[in-house]
Amino acid sequence: MPVGTAGAVKALTAADLEECGVEIVLANTYHLYLRPGPELVRRQGGLASFTGWHKPTLTDSGGYQVFSLKEISRISDDGVEFQSHLDGSRHLFTPENVIDIQHAIGPDIIMAFDQCVPYPSDEKAAAEGVRRTHEWAKRCRARHDELMQVSGGAAVPSLFGIVQGSTYKELRTQSARQIMALDFPGYAIGGLSVGESKKEMEDTLAHTIELLPPDRPRYLMGVGYPEDILMAASYGVDMFDCVLPTRNARTGSVFTSGGPLVYRNAECADDSRPLDPNCDCKVCRRYSRAYLRHLYNQSEITGMVLATYHSIYFYQKLMRDLRAAIEAGRLDEFRRAFMTRYNQQSS
Amino acid sequence: MPVGTAGAVKALTAADLEECGVEIVLANTYHLYLRPGPELVRRQGGLASFTGWHKPTLTDSGGYQVFSLKEISRISDDGVEFQSHLDGSRHLFTPENVIDIQHAIGPDIIMAFDQCVPYPSDEKAAAEGVRRTHEWAKRCRARHDELMQVSGGAAVPSLFGIVQGSTYKELRTQSARQIMALDFPGYAIGGLSVGESKKEMEDTLAHTIELLPPDRPRYLMGVGYPEDILMAASYGVDMFDCVLPTRNARTGSVFTSGGPLVYRNAECADDSRPLDPNCDCKVCRRYSRAYLRHLYNQSEITGMVLATYHSIYFYQKLMRDLRAAIEAGRLDEFRRAFMTRYNQQSS
Repeated sequence: MPVGTAGAVKALTAADLEECGVEIVLANTYHLYLRPGPELVRRQGGLASFTGWHKPTLTDSGGYQVFSLKEISRISDDGVEFQSHLDGSRHLFTPENVIDIQHAIGPDIIMAFDQCVPYPSDEKAAAEGVRRTHEWAKRCRARHDELMQVSGGAAVPSLFGIVQGSTYKELRTQSARQIMALDFPGYAIGGLSVGESKKEMEDTLAHTIELLPPDRPRYLMGVGYPEDILMAASYGVDMFDCVLPTRNARTGSVFTSGGPLVYRNAECADDSRPLDPNCDCKVCRRYSRAYLRHLYNQSEITGMVLATYHSIYFYQKLMRDLRAAIEAGRLDEFRRAFMTRYNQQSS
Repeated sequence: MPVGTAGAVKALTAADLEECGVEIVLANTYHLYLRPGPELVRRQGGLASFTGWHKPTLTDSGGYQVFSLKEISRISDDGVEFQSHLDGSRHLFTPENVIDIQHAIGPDIIMAFDQCVPYPSDEKAAAEGVRRTHEWAKRCRARHDELMQVSGGAAVPSLFGIVQGSTYKELRTQSARQIMALDFPGYAIGGLSVGESKKEMEDTLAHTIELLPPDRPRYLMGVGYPEDILMAASYGVDMFDCVLPTRNARTGSVFTSGGPLVYRNAECADDSRPLDPNCDCKVCRRYSRAYLRHLYNQSEITGMVLATYHSIYFYQKLMRDLRAAIEAGRLDEFRRAFMTRYNQQSS
């Protein structure tokens, strides 16, 4: 899922996303709550109608964002008090109102309000996060069920649960069992890709995903690099979201079949090759590295558009190829071939 | 001509321009000279190849830009010494090297190096500008002819002459005769839309265009608003360029059939109508004012892309409709009908 924080994948239009083959976009509840506000989105017909993106959407719970504001927030069992990064105004997120907000925004998938502890956290803090995540998940589930009943079938979102527990396997087991007992239609693995090593991430993921039902979508939040996605998919992860392709594109680096390319670098100044000679996207068919580097140096919006388009196209093609490989029973082969080519380029 | 200052119409791709029906794009010699440099553009195959825009292009002479840096430039008969706005480095533009630079950049139409005097200028300063513009035009013509001959037919640009003279009709007459004596394939009227009143612009234009040959393109530089374009077309102007549709779009205002719409305004916050209900562009078919205003408030690049696309589409449709009206001998009728609708909306 490309990330469309405030209801737009930065620099791209809905038509661009469709061309790239994007099937679902993530939006951030925290940002949409502050601006333009959930009730405005509801009045404008919900997220799809408001943003012009009519394929599936998912909102996160806002938890990850408010915890990243930890210096100006207060956490209690009731919820999280925080100050807006925009104007310093005070707000409270509770499991209940986060569900209300997401129902107002109206995506297809909504997420339970969880407590994501920072990395590293000691076992006591991680256990407290697991306990709170469980309590909050129960309250989210209850509120969601209530809203679904009240709406009489008009409300459509599926509520996914989130497993926490930092890198402690016993806590991950406990969290998974608690969350699964609430019977969600999909499960996310939260609290990874927050600073731990690649080995810790893989070990924790491998342990956690085994506990989750393979017949429901399993979503690894905030991941990641192509190599992380391939690793996680090999354990059975079905869904991912990450800002990397969009954020890096805007700051001068794109993903290519030969590895990351820092197109802002001087070595691209006179390079007439496309960003990725193996890519058939409309950017690679038309523009050179020299032009993209020039646009970067000029801070031209057009450059951010083109670079972002390429990287989103690249990620979507990776996901399509990955799905085809899984269906053909050739995931390991595909992963090896992809990584061999990907590691060739040093720039 | 939409303005693609540094080789890109800000926020749009070449495909966007094609979709909007754009037939020719202007680029600024001053900017491309400083970055990425004319020799790099030449090595990358010239402007079309470098920018991916394969339809016609025009470069201005850089004169207008360096004169706007007047505090840090020195003007003599030799040329203009100026400091880069990027790094303060010192440079010299002469009639000869401006032609060399434009040949290296390689557009389809290039412009003579002229002296555009500020508004207001007294008659003596304006006359000095006319004299210098004539001297420089002769040198540009000579240098251009030399390069065309040396290239043996490989160089393609047409060199247009520029008429100056501020708002002094006698000076305009003198300048037009001097420039026409050099027999250019097209003529531009420079030195307007620089601060004079609409009436002064119209009077000066009406006087000047009568002097220019109707069988060659007549180009009014830096104009303008839709009403200015319709006025100037009624006198016979064939070509225009202006940053208004792109610049205003990025700062929260678009052009519509009902007049300018300041979509950043609070009154658009909950408005589900398209920017222009009479427009069939892909932005108006998909997005609301509410969404565009939200994206503006969030400083989302996507919002700048969408607003710019609409305004360029609007201007191109205006030009298509205008051409059709001229061919049908109904220019006055078209102008009246357009302006009646255009003046209806107050926002």
